[in-house]
Amino acid sequence: MIIIMKGSASLREKTAVISWVEEHDCKANIFEGVEHMVIGVIGDGRPLNREQARMMSGVERVVPVLKPFKVASREFKPTNTQFPLGDCIVGGDDFVIMAGPCSVESRSQILETAHAVKEAGAHILRGGAFKPRSSPYSFQGLGEEGLQYLKEASEQTGMPVVTEVMEPALVPLVTQYADILQIGARNMQNYALLHAVGRSQHPVLLKRGMSSLIEEWLMCAEYILSHGNTRVMLCERGIRTFEKYTRNTFDINAIAVAKHLSHLPVIADPSHATGKWEYVASASRASVAAGADGVIIEVHPKPDEAWSDGRQSLKPERFAKLVTQMRAIAESVDRRIPEVSPKPDPILLPA
Amino acid sequence: MIIIMKGSASLREKTAVISWVEEHDCKANIFEGVEHMVIGVIGDGRPLNREQARMMSGVERVVPVLKPFKVASREFKPTNTQFPLGDCIVGGDDFVIMAGPCSVESRSQILETAHAVKEAGAHILRGGAFKPRSSPYSFQGLGEEGLQYLKEASEQTGMPVVTEVMEPALVPLVTQYADILQIGARNMQNYALLHAVGRSQHPVLLKRGMSSLIEEWLMCAEYILSHGNTRVMLCERGIRTFEKYTRNTFDINAIAVAKHLSHLPVIADPSHATGKWEYVASASRASVAAGADGVIIEVHPKPDEAWSDGRQSLKPERFAKLVTQMRAIAESVDRRIPEVSPKPDPILLPA
Amino acid sequence: MIIIMKGSASLREKTAVISWVEEHDCKANIFEGVEHMVIGVIGDGRPLNREQARMMSGVERVVPVLKPFKVASREFKPTNTQFPLGDCIVGGDDFVIMAGPCSVESRSQILETAHAVKEAGAHILRGGAFKPRSSPYSFQGLGEEGLQYLKEASEQTGMPVVTEVMEPALVPLVTQYADILQIGARNMQNYALLHAVGRSQHPVLLKRGMSSLIEEWLMCAEYILSHGNTRVMLCERGIRTFEKYTRNTFDINAIAVAKHLSHLPVIADPSHATGKWEYVASASRASVAAGADGVIIEVHPKPDEAWSDGRQSLKPERFAKLVTQMRAIAESVDRRIPEVSPKPDPILLPA
Amino acid sequence: MIIIMKGSASLREKTAVISWVEEHDCKANIFEGVEHMVIGVIGDGRPLNREQARMMSGVERVVPVLKPFKVASREFKPTNTQFPLGDCIVGGDDFVIMAGPCSVESRSQILETAHAVKEAGAHILRGGAFKPRSSPYSFQGLGEEGLQYLKEASEQTGMPVVTEVMEPALVPLVTQYADILQIGARNMQNYALLHAVGRSQHPVLLKRGMSSLIEEWLMCAEYILSHGNTRVMLCERGIRTFEKYTRNTFDINAIAVAKHLSHLPVIADPSHATGKWEYVASASRASVAAGADGVIIEVHPKPDEAWSDGRQSLKPERFAKLVTQMRAIAESVDRRIPEVSPKPDPILLPA
Repeated sequence: MIIIMKGSASLREKTAVISWVEEHDCKANIFEGVEHMVIGVIGDGRPLNREQARMMSGVERVVPVLKPFKVASREFKPTNTQFPLGDCIVGGDDFVIMAGPCSVESRSQILETAHAVKEAGAHILRGGAFKPRSSPYSFQGLGEEGLQYLKEASEQTGMPVVTEVMEPALVPLVTQYADILQIGARNMQNYALLHAVGRSQHPVLLKRGMSSLIEEWLMCAEYILSHGNTRVMLCERGIRTFEKYTRNTFDINAIAVAKHLSHLPVIADPSHATGKWEYVASASRASVAAGADGVIIEVHPKPDEAWSDGRQSLKPERFAKLVTQMRAIAESVDRRIPEVSPKPDPILLPA
Repeated sequence: MIIIMKGSASLREKTAVISWVEEHDCKANIFEGVEHMVIGVIGDGRPLNREQARMMSGVERVVPVLKPFKVASREFKPTNTQFPLGDCIVGGDDFVIMAGPCSVESRSQILETAHAVKEAGAHILRGGAFKPRSSPYSFQGLGEEGLQYLKEASEQTGMPVVTEVMEPALVPLVTQYADILQIGARNMQNYALLHAVGRSQHPVLLKRGMSSLIEEWLMCAEYILSHGNTRVMLCERGIRTFEKYTRNTFDINAIAVAKHLSHLPVIADPSHATGKWEYVASASRASVAAGADGVIIEVHPKPDEAWSDGRQSLKPERFAKLVTQMRAIAESVDRRIPEVSPKPDPILLPA
Repeated sequence: MIIIMKGSASLREKTAVISWVEEHDCKANIFEGVEHMVIGVIGDGRPLNREQARMMSGVERVVPVLKPFKVASREFKPTNTQFPLGDCIVGGDDFVIMAGPCSVESRSQILETAHAVKEAGAHILRGGAFKPRSSPYSFQGLGEEGLQYLKEASEQTGMPVVTEVMEPALVPLVTQYADILQIGARNMQNYALLHAVGRSQHPVLLKRGMSSLIEEWLMCAEYILSHGNTRVMLCERGIRTFEKYTRNTFDINAIAVAKHLSHLPVIADPSHATGKWEYVASASRASVAAGADGVIIEVHPKPDEAWSDGRQSLKPERFAKLVTQMRAIAESVDRRIPEVSPKPDPILLPA
Repeated sequence: MIIIMKGSASLREKTAVISWVEEHDCKANIFEGVEHMVIGVIGDGRPLNREQARMMSGVERVVPVLKPFKVASREFKPTNTQFPLGDCIVGGDDFVIMAGPCSVESRSQILETAHAVKEAGAHILRGGAFKPRSSPYSFQGLGEEGLQYLKEASEQTGMPVVTEVMEPALVPLVTQYADILQIGARNMQNYALLHAVGRSQHPVLLKRGMSSLIEEWLMCAEYILSHGNTRVMLCERGIRTFEKYTRNTFDINAIAVAKHLSHLPVIADPSHATGKWEYVASASRASVAAGADGVIIEVHPKPDEAWSDGRQSLKPERFAKLVTQMRAIAESVDRRIPEVSPKPDPILLPA
């Protein structure tokens, strides 16, 4: 922590700050500039102290030196965090593809979609059973029934399932059915929920809040990691800006930055990052080229009949074509999209 | 709902959209423009339909006509929602002042602050017992102990207490001690929590999310209102923008807009909206002049020793001076800041 | 300037930075923290140096200590800049009111408006002769003809005129007719234009760019001041954010911040800051209470026939009522809105 | 244009709007919804009318149907605009690479850089002779001397030159030396300048303003196109958001959107879009994959001695490596980066 005193600070104010630093078992390194005195604090920089320093009389600014996250940082763990997810090792050379509908709408819908995305090359099945909706009057998801259908689709296809959990009380239920817990953008700073998924020890996909700084996103990962749950994936899904032609602004820079600051895998969500299916392919291709460790894409057999987010869902045929494009780009940047393993069970689609 | 077809839409596509409208028991009013066909849908505009419409082949844009919130809207209830809070009728001519520290830090701190803000003219005591913190390593609040101190301060001063509740499971505990439940900005779209405070029937102070549209904020109020809990106050606390000199950008327009769109009272939070104590007074004065129904202000007896948000806390003396300024402005815009009633109990400050 | 070295910086890298500092005739104050070495540079902090420092091997961050603007800063000139404008001393206790139509549309329109706003209490007449328009197909202003009408309106009413100048080549023409040169938000960083109005020595109203930092705005004032033209007024007119219900987000905080950082007067533009006439009154009242030195408000005798910005223009009757409200608030914060002096000439309105 | 009347609109108000529509030689298509009357206007939708409509009594909202830009739109010209630039056909299958220093600093610096980027595979030389700087005290460019050095570098290498022009009066001078005129982000809405470069008939690289909507950017292209100058390239260079880790937020979506809405070529500027050299490579790769028609990248032989923007400049070796990576990705998406033709002249580097 560095404390920059005001040009007008009195000797008394300067002395008070120096004494305060020393009272907290830190050392004060002083240097007098042309206009300002600057005090370098040597010791541990707990945030609490920083706020107190800012408040002291005669202080102009306080500059933190240490990053606020620890376990999530590259300094703490220089090598990439890697762990197996279905047919992939996420965080390594593999580029992982998660796909499926926004919402689970029916048994047949999710089974049909699951088989379609698997055939197209997806490794993980996504689908929402509990849906965060802006309106209390909108469809809120099938709940446990949806989880059961997801589980069945997972058993038929061999794909692990990622699904959103929206409140701490439901973590035990969701972990019964799902392989990966998703924290949605609206809940990124729902700390009770972060503690709950941290304790669960399940892999977590942590979406960035729609107006969260990259640093805040990593702090939320830190909440989960602080429970010893190391299987955390960061998910960039677009941020809110003044531009309204697309639903969100895809912060493609955040992929490289998050991988620079942290050892955690970074997944891109081109569906939410654009909000319009016609731009999902270009955003997905860009994600591979930018260095993401995977994508999560909304696919629906009949987007114009989807109960939510149909506007940004791809049809299975378009998704299959996109996987081919992503595979070509992945190879050109020395990544690989693993081939999916054969289905574990015969397909048992409803008549 | 109005559906604007693409210039290039085929007759088949146009017919399909018209049929789809009519299948949903709505009437399609068609008019052919120079370049585009436009279809006006007469009937109820459920959001589900709107998304489906957007997805149909040949559709360029869908324009909603009805607002997405109902019970929160002025159309639904043209007169201001008013209800008593301590010595005030919030939502009427009274301008209500809520004040207190960011966090409850100790019994003596909250008792001292409570008496100080009451003497200065505050009507409601604020103080955090459960604190949302960016870092898992920061002070997280005193929890139930903090609630007990708040209750004691309330009993000594006669002021109702407003405090934040962060998770559904804690709503029963917090309602035991507090008079008003605060939903923090990070939790504005924590729907499980909104349902829980809605069911509680306690008055609620709903902070606007840091990047929430005014419309989304009103939709979250709708979640609470949908449980028949009508005592909801909206709280504008600044939004996140590119400007970084202040902690947030105080969206002063939002006060007048929210009061125009909704019948609910609107409270301003100049402490978070500026993030620096030296700008709290000007923002508070502006709030009165802009038509807010009250303010919530952070006051701390020793801001430079505060455990959180000291940077934006006023000392009691400055706060007292500010109340005088706000009173003068309130009178100039035909509002009144009610005088506080005598303390119900003798002051029993700790030695 | 403070240079924070990376934790991983080598001795060679540290030495190189220290040598580089000393080669530039500065002194390097070094202190070694737990993880990082920090170097305090004593000497002048030219921006060029700062960029070079950032690029040096082993450097993590560079923290400027001095503000980038000089002549515009309160440190440079602690007392408010004050100068006479018509019946007011702007920058002192007076609160100045500028009003008029967005565009000059005809002789009779500007004469009628000028008399109406003067009667209502305005001190300065605004009106656009050259209009910046998003579309090349929109009305671009009456040009010199508009300036002539403004001049006539000024002579009839005794009010000085403020009008926008959009390109350096037109500064001589505009200064022939207008008393105050307005730099529009889109041109805030049009440096050739800033130099031209600086050289003109005319008073300048400098609008903040729609996405400009307060610091950048003051830097643009510095461009004008650097020509010895000290009669510069800053104008906060709303910034662009994600919120779209209003045309812009009125950054009310910017008023107090700009007055804190600079000695220049600050004028608020509630018309552009809201974009809807129904919110102009609350934003104007808030401006007075927040400490602005004046307002500039769009008034049109028939807003629904205005050629531009009618949506945010007040009718003269509403404007007159607003002046009364602002006067009451001004008094409650120890400011005064000077009464306008009698008209210098008999009214000669066209039949 | 569609006019949505308020639910509370009176018959008189409705009739007035309908009459107004018909008086302007348009046809009014009326349909009565459950709560609102909606009026569809058939005829030409000049912006002026739209504003007037918004102001009429009883009108709630006005929804434009036609896009505000014409000549820039895909509807106007469905096929891609293509034109030759050096060894490339921009806007077709070729992916064009522009590279060079932020500022021209000396004859030797620009000659050395020009040869280096040409050897690495660049097609166009960039370099600033007139620099827009936030501070009046910063280096403002070498001016005409810089243009002369650029011309010499162009003659030695055979590369066309792109350079910024900042004011209308300098367009004749800059066109004497440069092949492509760049309009900087700060000047995107400097309409006098847009008119001047439009009249020049030189190819133009139009940077998006840092907070400009895609639609506004296309409107500025329309200003240039309206002079019959069809060789306009759009340049996405990042937008300003709340995220501060990178200098700007690269709006990668804007590439696909601009190409969807317009026939003009789109160039990405990864240097400004990230502001840090370590993220330029990932942003450049993403640009190719997202469908851009080219990139413009800052390269400096000694970034840590650059007079401006060294922080985001690549060294020639890194740039050469990046060209190889971009070429691999380009091929995987069926684009080609043309090989550069042999140097027209022997290299005559200064001793």
